[in-house]
Amino acid sequence: MNLESLKKRVQSDTIIDDQEIIAGFVDDWTRRFRGHTSVVAIPRSTSEIAEILKWCSSNQVNVVPQGGNTGMVGGGVPMNGELILSLRRMNRVDFVDGPIPHIIAQAGATLASIQESATHNGWMYGVDFSARESATIGGTIATNAGGNHVIRYGDTRRQVVSLQALTASGKIIGDISGLTKDNTGYHLPSLLCGSEGTLAVITQARLRLWTQPQEKTVVLLGLPSPKAALEIVKFFVASNEETQACEIFFEKGLSLVCQQFGIQPPWPEKCSTYLLIEFAGSKGLLDRLNESEGGEMLKNFDLIAIGEEKASQSRLWRYRSLHTEAISASGIPHKLDITIPFEKLSIFFDEIDSVVEQSSPNAEAFLFGHAGDGNIHVNLIGLNEDDLAPDEAVLEFAASLGGSISAEHGIGRAKSNYLHLRRTPEEISLFKNLKTAFDPTGILNPGVIFPN
Amino acid sequence: MNLESLKKRVQSDTIIDDQEIIAGFVDDWTRRFRGHTSVVAIPRSTSEIAEILKWCSSNQVNVVPQGGNTGMVGGGVPMNGELILSLRRMNRVDFVDGPIPHIIAQAGATLASIQESATHNGWMYGVDFSARESATIGGTIATNAGGNHVIRYGDTRRQVVSLQALTASGKIIGDISGLTKDNTGYHLPSLLCGSEGTLAVITQARLRLWTQPQEKTVVLLGLPSPKAALEIVKFFVASNEETQACEIFFEKGLSLVCQQFGIQPPWPEKCSTYLLIEFAGSKGLLDRLNESEGGEMLKNFDLIAIGEEKASQSRLWRYRSLHTEAISASGIPHKLDITIPFEKLSIFFDEIDSVVEQSSPNAEAFLFGHAGDGNIHVNLIGLNEDDLAPDEAVLEFAASLGGSISAEHGIGRAKSNYLHLRRTPEEISLFKNLKTAFDPTGILNPGVIFPN
Repeated sequence: MNLESLKKRVQSDTIIDDQEIIAGFVDDWTRRFRGHTSVVAIPRSTSEIAEILKWCSSNQVNVVPQGGNTGMVGGGVPMNGELILSLRRMNRVDFVDGPIPHIIAQAGATLASIQESATHNGWMYGVDFSARESATIGGTIATNAGGNHVIRYGDTRRQVVSLQALTASGKIIGDISGLTKDNTGYHLPSLLCGSEGTLAVITQARLRLWTQPQEKTVVLLGLPSPKAALEIVKFFVASNEETQACEIFFEKGLSLVCQQFGIQPPWPEKCSTYLLIEFAGSKGLLDRLNESEGGEMLKNFDLIAIGEEKASQSRLWRYRSLHTEAISASGIPHKLDITIPFEKLSIFFDEIDSVVEQSSPNAEAFLFGHAGDGNIHVNLIGLNEDDLAPDEAVLEFAASLGGSISAEHGIGRAKSNYLHLRRTPEEISLFKNLKTAFDPTGILNPGVIFPN
Repeated sequence: MNLESLKKRVQSDTIIDDQEIIAGFVDDWTRRFRGHTSVVAIPRSTSEIAEILKWCSSNQVNVVPQGGNTGMVGGGVPMNGELILSLRRMNRVDFVDGPIPHIIAQAGATLASIQESATHNGWMYGVDFSARESATIGGTIATNAGGNHVIRYGDTRRQVVSLQALTASGKIIGDISGLTKDNTGYHLPSLLCGSEGTLAVITQARLRLWTQPQEKTVVLLGLPSPKAALEIVKFFVASNEETQACEIFFEKGLSLVCQQFGIQPPWPEKCSTYLLIEFAGSKGLLDRLNESEGGEMLKNFDLIAIGEEKASQSRLWRYRSLHTEAISASGIPHKLDITIPFEKLSIFFDEIDSVVEQSSPNAEAFLFGHAGDGNIHVNLIGLNEDDLAPDEAVLEFAASLGGSISAEHGIGRAKSNYLHLRRTPEEISLFKNLKTAFDPTGILNPGVIFPN
């Protein structure tokens, strides 16, 4: 590509062709996707993005939009030398007061910066997950990020009131007016949310906030079976609106975490299944819990730890949140992010080990996830990078139970060949028509969602 | 059209060509849109709908999907002899248990039947409005219906977990798997929600339910100005999560209601502005309200009525809910459904009368609406059917304040010529591309959203 004509359209340091700097943009953090490109554009304004997209359109240069590069499925990696359009410099965050206050954020603002602005103003943003310091709001919208609190606050789509984006040819669509009710044509915010950079480049969004809980309680239970855990999950999600997370994990993962990080397990006894429940709400939370039917029920458990203040809550959360790091330290995992219908979760947990074993005797599965919404993270280790048989076996098993092959990470490049397991030929054909409606020359994130 | 070939594809009584029966389907209830057709199809199954759509596609017969025919913008009226595809016979409703339970409803099930099923099973459906006995869930999805409780439970899009639809050529898209987290391609439920029958025919949907409130309190306030009301709205929506409706209306409307229905006004004194606030929640609701800062604030008002039980609550709600009927009894109103950004509502209320008066000296505006989300219903009376100058003036005024020309009724046929007031040429062009992606021959609800 002739970068000189691009450089003329924007500020001098917006276009980067120094391979040393570029090296920081081309690989994803899972280390599974390693890309290459001759150019990274880091614009400072919507008009610069528009100029870049117009240039790419005119020159048929493919574009990979990139936020914090914390994606799990290679959706932000230039596998075929695409131009990287990094949104990192677009990181402004503004609080907007109102009956339900909003935040207006540029696409490159980190999730953490949005959470901080919300908290600083006495409110709360509804989505949280561990990559918060690096993940950008644009990336979380493009992937419709979920996280721990979806059972209570919904996914990212639920947070986006309005958004502005640029089409492949650099034209502005959408707005950040923040109207709660606005039925004027097809709903672009919902459609662009989860579109993984294939339809348009999200430039800014207006996000709703939620009442800040004043108190939090974390309960960790050691249980004899997944089934026992699922009954408790159902009970609390259904009966207690202050339930905001229900995280499930298992003995094998807990042992790995304790061993890798040199921490004590919660109890000397080993359990099949661990369940962490987080409650949050206004003052008097723990009293309300104790006086409720659920509180009575909890008194019957022997293996129970309750975190009443921050330090003990963090200690309990560690057992769950250190899973990712502990597994990565054992090798490059194949990370599968699936949803199983709640009523099928028990079957899934009973059979997953044998499904994996049959597909590859070397593979070992570590499971953890968000039991309240059926979203399980299956991490396979002991495999070569290109041994995809176990991945396929797990995704096929999930699909056979009526589940989804992508819960909250997206399809990206990693799962584009498996989209057919969850979507019919009619749907995939329709998706391609939608893609063409937005991006007729196909320059936006080619190879993502659909196979190249 | 040659109906014989259509009749062969479905059960004998599915296709109706008797004009006496057809007469019940062709006009909308606002009396503003009077259509005509030679055929109404009332299928009993998804496969019958598919057969009808295949026949329409092959014969280039245009289709108007119709639910309860309670729309406000002519979106379900065959203005050019289109085939009416009535979903009324598809009215099955099934409750599905789970941590957050769902209802699976066929498109023709009424809103009331869904609310009843939810209540019967100890839960609640999040959307409610006065046409509940006739409006179908398919219609509420196609228009992304709002109603009184959007500030707390969101609009219809927020309730739809999954949906199934048929394309113009009769192919099934979507599913009713009800997965909370499922990022596998573009999100069809969100896109079809609000698409007003122009993209596909919704056949069934899976809807989330909410915890049933155990108690309710209704407060009516008489206030000196819209501004005073808006401050109270902001306070309660922001500080009390049990607030579920904030309805605003004015002296002129209240007088009309009292006069038309022979009921006493709430107080002998006349007020500029009335505000009805509904709270709902678990046991102890009124005590919590009284002990809160908001409860303290309410003690300072002289003109306040509190409905603690059902009968008194209904009496207070009447002042607001009888507006529609009272206005219709005074003539055929021009009904405009707009959203104004909350911070501009005060300006809007101050200036709307002079905007209307300048556009037509005969027009009189009655206003009421959902103050919490800025959705105001402007009803113009004293006008000929084809005197659209005041409609245009109001919509232009709303747009000039950054508002929307359609909050919860949709664009339909009534506002298709005004879509440009809220949407840019780029957006409208993109919408047309999306329409073509779904419905390449344009047989689904032509003239709706976009001008013919």
